[in-house]
Formats: sequence, structure tokens, C-alpha cells
Amino acid sequence: MQKASLPKGTRDFSPEVMNRRNHIIDVIKDVYVLFGFDPIETPAMEQLSTLTGKYGAEGDKLLFKILNSGDYLTKANEQALAEKNSNQLVSSISDKGLRYDLTVPFARYVVQNQHNITFPFKRYQIQPVWRADRPQKGRYREFWQCDADVIGTKSLVCEADFIQIYHQVFTNLGLKDYQVRLNHRKILEAIAKTIAFQGSFTDLTVAIDKLDKIGWEGVTTELTNKGLAPDKIDSLKSLLRIKPFSMATIGELQESLVDCEEKTLGIEELTQVLNHGDISHVNIVLDFSLARGLDYYTGCIFEAIIEESGIGSVSGGGRYDDLTGVFGLKDVSGVGISFGLDRIYDILSNQGSFEESYTHNKVLFCHFDEVARKYALACALKLRVNQIPTVVYPDLKKINKQFDYANKCGYKWVAVVGDNEIETESVQLKNMQTGEQEKLSLTDMIARFS
Amino acid sequence: MQKASLPKGTRDFSPEVMNRRNHIIDVIKDVYVLFGFDPIETPAMEQLSTLTGKYGAEGDKLLFKILNSGDYLTKANEQALAEKNSNQLVSSISDKGLRYDLTVPFARYVVQNQHNITFPFKRYQIQPVWRADRPQKGRYREFWQCDADVIGTKSLVCEADFIQIYHQVFTNLGLKDYQVRLNHRKILEAIAKTIAFQGSFTDLTVAIDKLDKIGWEGVTTELTNKGLAPDKIDSLKSLLRIKPFSMATIGELQESLVDCEEKTLGIEELTQVLNHGDISHVNIVLDFSLARGLDYYTGCIFEAIIEESGIGSVSGGGRYDDLTGVFGLKDVSGVGISFGLDRIYDILSNQGSFEESYTHNKVLFCHFDEVARKYALACALKLRVNQIPTVVYPDLKKINKQFDYANKCGYKWVAVVGDNEIETESVQLKNMQTGEQEKLSLTDMIARFS
Repeated sequence: MQKASLPKGTRDFSPEVMNRRNHIIDVIKDVYVLFGFDPIETPAMEQLSTLTGKYGAEGDKLLFKILNSGDYLTKANEQALAEKNSNQLVSSISDKGLRYDLTVPFARYVVQNQHNITFPFKRYQIQPVWRADRPQKGRYREFWQCDADVIGTKSLVCEADFIQIYHQVFTNLGLKDYQVRLNHRKILEAIAKTIAFQGSFTDLTVAIDKLDKIGWEGVTTELTNKGLAPDKIDSLKSLLRIKPFSMATIGELQESLVDCEEKTLGIEELTQVLNHGDISHVNIVLDFSLARGLDYYTGCIFEAIIEESGIGSVSGGGRYDDLTGVFGLKDVSGVGISFGLDRIYDILSNQGSFEESYTHNKVLFCHFDEVARKYALACALKLRVNQIPTVVYPDLKKINKQFDYANKCGYKWVAVVGDNEIETESVQLKNMQTGEQEKLSLTDMIARFS
Repeated sequence: MQKASLPKGTRDFSPEVMNRRNHIIDVIKDVYVLFGFDPIETPAMEQLSTLTGKYGAEGDKLLFKILNSGDYLTKANEQALAEKNSNQLVSSISDKGLRYDLTVPFARYVVQNQHNITFPFKRYQIQPVWRADRPQKGRYREFWQCDADVIGTKSLVCEADFIQIYHQVFTNLGLKDYQVRLNHRKILEAIAKTIAFQGSFTDLTVAIDKLDKIGWEGVTTELTNKGLAPDKIDSLKSLLRIKPFSMATIGELQESLVDCEEKTLGIEELTQVLNHGDISHVNIVLDFSLARGLDYYTGCIFEAIIEESGIGSVSGGGRYDDLTGVFGLKDVSGVGISFGLDRIYDILSNQGSFEESYTHNKVLFCHFDEVARKYALACALKLRVNQIPTVVYPDLKKINKQFDYANKCGYKWVAVVGDNEIETESVQLKNMQTGEQEKLSLTDMIARFS
């Protein structure tokens, strides 16, 4: 006998959980559609060459790799096999991997379908992704991303739209305590110049990105090791503040940063985003400590959190000027955001937002004997023709057993039928919550539930 | 530079294809819901031990296996490595696989969650599955199954429901030429006894299952090799006919089969299915040559085809008396069916049922300059508050370029705005199909599209 179990970090979703997850997905999808995004889907598997090298060295390690079919060892790298070098062997026995996010597959999709796409192209995509991360609370090996991207335009109208989308999604989900954090990679580059950072820009963003986890103490150690002087670290600390997203804050940047091309561009773009529509209703801040780990971001970057949830960011995104370049399509700028379905679910769940008990809107027919069951089956067909979800208890069991089943399953409405109901073409309609019972003709019952 | 490509047998789905696929999924899902099924989902990955041995030797070969993470060679089977024995090595370097169907994961789910499930449990599940089959026309390595199962009751009411479901799904999809084929594994067993077949029952069903592909000539050769005499093959041929699903046909079975327990049970069950409701509107036949490859079926088995589509079956299913037994939960009978989304899509596509051209129901704002774009952005927010999907052309381009974009994307409605519209708080609403244009106040426009 085998034990029924799941790979660690993966989950089943019961009907109750599915209904809640589908609610979140519907909210996000509806907002995407309202802003003009169309759906696409890409396969779970991608060529490993499409995925590797896109998520940093750490990301490559977290890719799930699929063993080649058939006699995969015939093409295995002999040396790697002899030396038992797992890393070196991989590429010779596996050429497919599970997708790690939806952004790189989207870039691949755009390049592959470039002749059938009218740019600017707005797509949304809601699918699972897989990462061989160490599973822990709130972190799964299979989890869902809900992405929207616009590709083929540099217009900052897109960034302004995403800010509105954030507000709409969180409002519709009942998450009033959201905060959208905005930064610009060019401003970060100007900050690097202002403090005369000698290391690579990636060194700086990687360090800043850890602020949440290791605090200023840890970041100071890291940057000191990279040769940054204490007074420069102090300047950095004073620059990486959270500020209102306003013309006043942008004016301060003008003062505090050394003049450079990046500063000019960053300020110009942030100003445009501010000017592309009313954001007074949006809870948004400029957070100059927001770095986003991924190298491909080049312009505005986003993150959204739910305050006091204790769970990290529930969404991230940004502009990438050349993500398609690696696949051979140059100069196509895009911008996108991604909501993490599982984290949003966990927050709503912790907040008790799902408290309402789970009741079916469908009707269960209970019956006293075989003849009554046959009558119930005929009634059910008629109800279904009228789009009323209906179940006939399948077995011939005592009526109390059938009521137990109805209660355990959360049925609100049970239609009880026996000889009397058959004769009068009616049902005894029982409200399982109140216990009230009422005799109704089948026609009246259909009318009531339609 | 990398070439943008996909693993063979996998596909991207464009917005146009997604809309059509979602339509099919919605039809199937709506019917499942109407018959009282609830949704569940299971992970893409399962323990390899959950999957292997469930689909026959051929099926095991078609499983996609996931390479263990990290230094996977440290636990590799030394002997298999030295001998380069791919088969023997697998279990030591891979303990997860991609799901091959939705039935085995469902059985695993039921056993694992047995204490939270109220039986009988009706679930539907619509997810992709993966098989390392040789890709060919209509056969993909990633494809979608739409399953519904009832587990925890032996009642033939379930089989009767599935027959109604078949009719409803195909009717709602506009596939009038469907045919549901029904058989019973016990009748097949009685047929084996009637012709005194000496080989294993699996030998017989495997041979019969190939009738479609190799015809009677091939099947004759195969069964002759298994020692079946020519006169017995003739008897078999005359038994494996397609007949109406009626009491008359069941009466003929009574005559033509030797008396045995299987015959009694098979006839009893088919009679019950027939008595559980009106099926006069359903295009259903008894097809005694229907075998279904999978070993776990024990009672009624189903298949559905679309006549003259040239594509094999679009759905299959049946009753399994002990699928959960292997995971340690005995005596739980279930029955289910599965629609193949991709084959149904291909048939509807070949029939030209998707002919309607793809038009958006959303509105595109086109503008003459930066000031007009800002006005358009403000209008768009108001339309979206009224649930009208709206896009503002993001870039400042000539109006004709913007119209080209609208046409290529299939927008029916374009709202054109310039100085005059700003002054009068209105839009020029242009129907891109007729070319007609009309000046409307923003309020009127909102009223019209709401």
C-alpha cells in the first residue's frame, strides 16, 4: 500500500478554498479587463535555455528541471557522469524546465508571435509558477501569479494605469490597508552617483533589497565591505526614505541628488506619471529604498504591501526596456505588474474576510423510497432546464441519513419527496438553516429558484 | 542571441484562442455545476510513486519526471550510473512527476482528505495534464482535461446523470452530431466467458481496444496468436456490435451470453441506468466493442465521439470500484467522465463554429495631442467606474496611426477627442465597422455602454 501524499510545498485546493481563490482571481481579472487587457496562456514547460540566466544565479538553482524522455543517459555528458557533477550534467539530460514566473515566458511569447501581435499589446495571464525554494509559511513551490503587462510603448500612461489598477483591485478585495510603493531605477542610479558608490549597481540594489530582512545594520556591514565610507552610508540612509508621491518630493530630489542624466530622466518620468491622471484617492508613496531584485527593470518599479499583515509584498513589477532583446527583438519596452494570489489569499484568510460559512446555492432532493427517487430524478431534470443546480441523493437510505448529508455539505435547501408529493406533483421544501418546511408545487418551486 | 521557441507538443494560447477555449470550459463547467459538482484542484507535480504503475507499462514511459533539486547525483544508484541504465537510475534522481491525468490525483486527494470529505463527493476539475507522447495532429504533450467524478456511492443514478450531462454539454456546444457509447466491463467479462477465451481478460480488452486502429483483421491476428479459434472469433465479432440502448438489446444479451455472475450483474446495472430517467432525447448506443484501455474500470464505461469529425473520442470514463484502494482506502466506488478540451476545440474550429470575427467590446480613446490625451485619461476613469472596459491609446501619434491600431486590434468603438470635445465635455464616437461618427456627451456615452 502506498501512502497518499503530496510533494512538499505543493497543495490541494478543496471546493471551499477553490471558491475563495476564484473570487480573488475574478476580482483581479475583472479589473484587468476593465483596463483593456486580453488573456493569454503559455505552457508549464519552457526550453531550459529560455529560463536559465534570467533570474540570477540563485534563480537558476530554483528552476525545476524535467528529465528528458526515453534513454536520456545516451546523450549524457561523459565527464560530468564520471565526476558525478550534478550541475555540469544537467544540460545534457534535461532540456525543459517548469516556468519560474510569467514575465520571461511572456517576453518569449512576444518575440515568437511578433508578426501576429499589434503593438502596444496588453495581456493578462493568471497561471501557476514553480520554484524549488525551501517551503515555509506563506512560501510554496507551486504558486499562482496574476500578471498584466503592456509591451511596445514607452508611454508613462501605462505606469499611471497600473497605479489606478492597484487601487481598484485592493478596494474590490476589501483590502483598504494597502500601500503602493513606487521608485525609479534611474533615481537609484542617481543615488549611487550621489554617494559615489564604487561597486557595481547590482551590488548596491542587492544590498538595498535586503533592508526588510537584515535592516540597516546588515546593509551597512555589506556596503562597508564593498568599500563605502561611513559618511556615504549616512547620506544613503537619509536618501532612502519613504516620501509622499508629490511634486514637492520630486522637487527635493532635484536638490539632493548630483546632476546626471539618470536624475534628469528619473525626475522627468516620475513627473509624467503624476500628471497622467488623478491619484489623490490612491494610497501611494515614493519609496527610494525599493530596489526589486531583478536586473531587467530599467524605469519605474512597483511594490504593494498590505500594512500590518506581516506578509511581505503581495505584488511587484516595473518597466523593462529590453527583456525581449535576449530573444532577438530589440527596442521593445514593456511594463507590468504581478499579484501573488496565494499571499492575498493568506491575508484575507488571516483577516477573517472569508468568515461567511460555505453554503451551496444548489438544491438537494431527499426521498423515502425507490419510487420517490425516480420522481426526484424527473424533478431534477426540470429544475436543471431552468438553470437551477440540483442533486438527487443517489442512494436509498433513511431520510435522517440524507438530512445529515445535507447539513454536512452545507445545503441550505432540501426538497423532500414521498408518495404524497408524487400524487400532487409537489415537493416539501425544507430550509436546513431554520428547519422551516413548506409544501410547494414543482412549478412554484422552479419559479422561486429561477 | 537565443531563439524563441517552445518544447515540442506544447502551445501558446493567444487572446483569440483563449476566448474560444474559455467558452468551451464555461459550457462544461456550467453543466457540471448544474448537476451539483464542486471544483477542486491538485498540484501539477505528484510523487512519482503516486503516478507509476497506474497507467500500464506504456503509461509509465510517458510520465514527465522532474529532476531532484540540488546535488541530485549524491543519491544516484551507483550501479545504474556505472551501467548507464536510464530506467534503473530514474527513481534515484527523480521523485516527482507531472500529472498524467486527473483521475489518479483525485483518488490520491480523496484518500488524503477522507476525514474532511462528506461522501458521496461530487467534484469537477479542469486542469492541464502532461504526457511525453509523440506529438502529432490533435495530440499534444500538454493538454486539458475537464473531469467530473462522484465517489462514495455505487448508485447507478450517477451513471444516469452522466448520460444527461453528455447530452447537455454537447447540445450547449452546438455539437449535435455527438454519439455517447456505453458498455459494461462485466458484460465484456461475460463475453470472454461466452467465447471461452483462455488468455487474460486484459489481453482481450487490449485487443478489442485496438479495433478502431487495426480493424478486425488486426484484432483477429492478435487473438489467434492468443489461441482463440476461428469460430470463436466469429462469435466475438457478432457479439461486439453497436446496438440501441434499450430493454430489447438487454433482452438479447440475456439470450446470447452464457449464464454467469458477470452477465447477471451487467444486465442488472444496465437495466437500472435505463430506468433512472428519460434518455429518449440522448443520442446513446450500447457499443459492446468499447473496452477502454485502463484496467481500473469495473462497471459501466463511456465514450463520446463527434460523428464525421475524423477525430477520435472527445470524452471517456467509467466506474472504478477500487481506485482508492492502492492508497489504503478500500471499498469506495466512484464513477467519472473526462472531456478533452483540445479535441473539442479542434472539432469546433474545423467545423468553422468559431467563424465570428474577434471584436472587443471595449472602447479605445484616440486623441489629437497631449492635452486631449489627458482629457481621455480622465474620461477613461469615469467609464471604468461604470464597468465599461476602456483603453487610452498611450502614445502621441497621428490620429490615422491610432485608427489603424483600432482596426488591427478589432475595436468596434473608438472615442475621438480634441479641443472641441474637451470644451463641451463630449466625445466623437466612431463605429469602426460602419465608419459612422456621432458626437455624444460623456454622460450619454456612459449611459449607452453601461
